[in-house]
Amino acid sequence: MERRAEIGWILVMMLSSAARTARSHLVPAGHGRAARVRAGQLVRVTDPFGGQVGDLFAFVDDGGRGLTSSLSAAHTRGHTSRLFPAVGEDFVTAARTPILRLVEDTSPGRHDMLIPACDPERYRLLGVRPHRSCVENVHEALAALDLGVDVVPQPVNLFMNIPVEDDGALSWLPAPSRRGDAVTFVSHVDTVVVLSACPQDLVGINAGAPSDLLIEVLDRP
Amino acid sequence: MERRAEIGWILVMMLSSAARTARSHLVPAGHGRAARVRAGQLVRVTDPFGGQVGDLFAFVDDGGRGLTSSLSAAHTRGHTSRLFPAVGEDFVTAARTPILRLVEDTSPGRHDMLIPACDPERYRLLGVRPHRSCVENVHEALAALDLGVDVVPQPVNLFMNIPVEDDGALSWLPAPSRRGDAVTFVSHVDTVVVLSACPQDLVGINAGAPSDLLIEVLDRP
Repeated sequence: MERRAEIGWILVMMLSSAARTARSHLVPAGHGRAARVRAGQLVRVTDPFGGQVGDLFAFVDDGGRGLTSSLSAAHTRGHTSRLFPAVGEDFVTAARTPILRLVEDTSPGRHDMLIPACDPERYRLLGVRPHRSCVENVHEALAALDLGVDVVPQPVNLFMNIPVEDDGALSWLPAPSRRGDAVTFVSHVDTVVVLSACPQDLVGINAGAPSDLLIEVLDRP
Repeated sequence: MERRAEIGWILVMMLSSAARTARSHLVPAGHGRAARVRAGQLVRVTDPFGGQVGDLFAFVDDGGRGLTSSLSAAHTRGHTSRLFPAVGEDFVTAARTPILRLVEDTSPGRHDMLIPACDPERYRLLGVRPHRSCVENVHEALAALDLGVDVVPQPVNLFMNIPVEDDGALSWLPAPSRRGDAVTFVSHVDTVVVLSACPQDLVGINAGAPSDLLIEVLDRP
């Protein structure tokens, strides 16, 4: 695949230019990857081709196999009095524990925290089954680290463009991220993050077609 | 209390004029009440004095003591492509099961589905502890029916006015409901509903001071 060869070069360039990169994962289109992040480390999500939504989940890593505390979209909205935190603001758990802080965003800054992760039921209602989904990607990605959750929480939908009209109507627009746009967080606590390169190809949120994403865990400079 | 005497008269008038009222509960300011609703019955929430937020929760009543399926704010937003359903639209569970349909709204129509229920942590961060909260009201109200939940879901905040600015900023404005405004739902399935007359008195969402609400379960005419 031409794109996969291209992404190989992008990875090589990123790794050579960023000595502080601790770990780097390619997340193939429609799939998910989990990574452990220590308190103080950075997490960067890059959209190498542009136009791709990334569902990001963050769980407090308490050392157990069952993850019980996670980033809460609803409590983050209440805590920040915003639909989505501004750069410098925190995402929190239901207990208001700060878990991730948004520290840099090179994209047009359109992200979503209103819409739940796609799941088999979503695709069944759209008339397609089976179909990969972000919910199943979370279970798969966590299982690869011998971890699990009972309920997949509402994600932080990076690059997802869901404008709100004055009457409360929501639109599902293509992700406006450009090639190489990236969002960076610092982790306040030891965390397990999961990134799903959203497989949605029936509603036009992923410009063109679903594509790959990159996730890096970086030591602070 | 003058207001309690007044609400007694309102209840008497409502009961005498509505022969189809099956059950009616006064929910005292800052407290919560749970009620069982059969499929096809109506649930009406009335703000007798105006300006009061009501946190409404709905759980599928499967006959067990632990309620596992509930109205999901996030899945309802995705399902309706709206911040809040319009009259005639459904609230759904995470499995997309329709649970309540909004059938009538005599209020100005400002309701919220962005903000989580207030809880002890919310009041601690506001500098007050102990303080009644909607989360504790849910546990208390369900316990009175010998029911319980592990996690209190995000509520439907009736009459709560949280406008969204173009930049995603949220404002916390006083509830615009007038004396006697009411919202009515029909239940698609056997349901346990909980209504909490929100005790918030530190942020100005309850105009004046927290006041009582009414919840009625009605047989369909």
